[in-house]
Amino acid sequence: MAVFRYPFTVRFADVDHAGIVYYPIFYHYFHVAFEELFRDRMGAAAYQTLLDEDKVGFPAVHSECDYKSPLRFADSAETEIALDRLGTKSVTLRYRVSRIAGQERILAAEGRVTCAVTDLKAFRAIEPSEGLRELFLELRESVR
Amino acid sequence: MAVFRYPFTVRFADVDHAGIVYYPIFYHYFHVAFEELFRDRMGAAAYQTLLDEDKVGFPAVHSECDYKSPLRFADSAETEIALDRLGTKSVTLRYRVSRIAGQERILAAEGRVTCAVTDLKAFRAIEPSEGLRELFLELRESVR
Amino acid sequence: MAVFRYPFTVRFADVDHAGIVYYPIFYHYFHVAFEELFRDRMGAAAYQTLLDEDKVGFPAVHSECDYKSPLRFADSAETEIALDRLGTKSVTLRYRVSRIAGQERILAAEGRVTCAVTDLKAFRAIEPSEGLRELFLELRESVR
Amino acid sequence: MAVFRYPFTVRFADVDHAGIVYYPIFYHYFHVAFEELFRDRMGAAAYQTLLDEDKVGFPAVHSECDYKSPLRFADSAETEIALDRLGTKSVTLRYRVSRIAGQERILAAEGRVTCAVTDLKAFRAIEPSEGLRELFLELRESVR
Repeated sequence: MAVFRYPFTVRFADVDHAGIVYYPIFYHYFHVAFEELFRDRMGAAAYQTLLDEDKVGFPAVHSECDYKSPLRFADSAETEIALDRLGTKSVTLRYRVSRIAGQERILAAEGRVTCAVTDLKAFRAIEPSEGLRELFLELRESVR
Repeated sequence: MAVFRYPFTVRFADVDHAGIVYYPIFYHYFHVAFEELFRDRMGAAAYQTLLDEDKVGFPAVHSECDYKSPLRFADSAETEIALDRLGTKSVTLRYRVSRIAGQERILAAEGRVTCAVTDLKAFRAIEPSEGLRELFLELRESVR
Repeated sequence: MAVFRYPFTVRFADVDHAGIVYYPIFYHYFHVAFEELFRDRMGAAAYQTLLDEDKVGFPAVHSECDYKSPLRFADSAETEIALDRLGTKSVTLRYRVSRIAGQERILAAEGRVTCAVTDLKAFRAIEPSEGLRELFLELRESVR
Repeated sequence: MAVFRYPFTVRFADVDHAGIVYYPIFYHYFHVAFEELFRDRMGAAAYQTLLDEDKVGFPAVHSECDYKSPLRFADSAETEIALDRLGTKSVTLRYRVSRIAGQERILAAEGRVTCAVTDLKAFRAIEPSEGLRELFLELRESVR
């Protein structure tokens, strides 16, 4: 039971005219880590199959983020995902994006996103399958 | 004293694999309306001059959004900006994105973004100029 | 018979770490103008209906662009579209993006994109409808 | 002497309303591989140092791409970079993006981008340093 970690690099196009990562891009970093979580736990095609064949998706119903320090082009960084709350028909995940500078980790942003587990045909919230519940519950953080 | 409104169209690239606007894009819509606010009130070059010559910018310190209904490709939409709170060295703006369908307006998302008024050279929060204070105060909503 | 023109503003997020518009974004500007061409000539829902109901789309088979001068944040600009060549099952459009500075127009980029008129169900090139042929033929440039 | 290869995954946000990768995104894939080339050959900070301290950059002067087969969400893919031509003050790199399906590689797009080696202060083309020349010359493809 542990957070999921996904390392990445800040791209040339991620920064804005102020020379720091454009603040909406942090939510993109969150989503990319979410995609990688599925690849890592359920295989490369799992998320795509869930969406396209099972017609189950996770539209966001709420998102929020606190920005702690800027990220800049070429920074080495990492996104961590932990479970915040598993509801009956929704899941809230916690995200932390940190800059990696040698042994140091500098928190850049932390946020959370609540998604409705959704039947994409009817666009209606549904209960997640047992497999999905397990995937999310594994992201509970141990007491630290 | 009124909200600022900026109409726009949902683009081909704004939607994701689920066929609805990718949730981080709503924050981009917020920012585009923020850029238009400056163009409208202070002229086409005002925001760029503020950033590049006065070295004053508005990095986000907090953002949040509630998603109410999906936007899809080619939807006609509008972003509204209103003042939530003007602090000593920060400003919180409220954003609403609505879909325009004939006479109807369907709320798609509402959120708020807190920015630190920032000296970009020192990357340190500063008090906004009188002109900036006025620009933001004009966005107070009248009692409705 | 004339080119189609679509004015726009360079956005905060369009520039990259070098402070100029990220070169792939010019192709996005081309596409946004293409979307506006359909809105202008056939109505707000025309392109979306074509794609989602008629299942006809225009995947690019070739694109190219020459970059003449950089665009920067907050620049006022305009995209022009003209017909380069209407084939049996494809269309090549020419795009020019210019910066507008007072009375002056400074060419920033010019390119062309060839799209296959495509049955999206079979993902197979097809002949365009008469309505589409007319839309494209109207973009022929008069001899200059 | 060999091509540089950078594997990646197609992201949720990379596809457009037609359900395939938005054609401008291929140029973004090209650029991401270019960034990784520098990281791989010269270290994580090399490209950023070149830009921000040496004030040397590579604005595109020409780009082109042929699209061979679509990429879709969650595809495993790889970008290859090879030297096309090293000029006195410019470099043309060749890019191929392929989908990886088990042992198979399916070509999705191939293109080339010519960049002017540029003094970013004067925005003027300059001759590349010996180190840069070597980096590019190593990308010559052996006769195949």
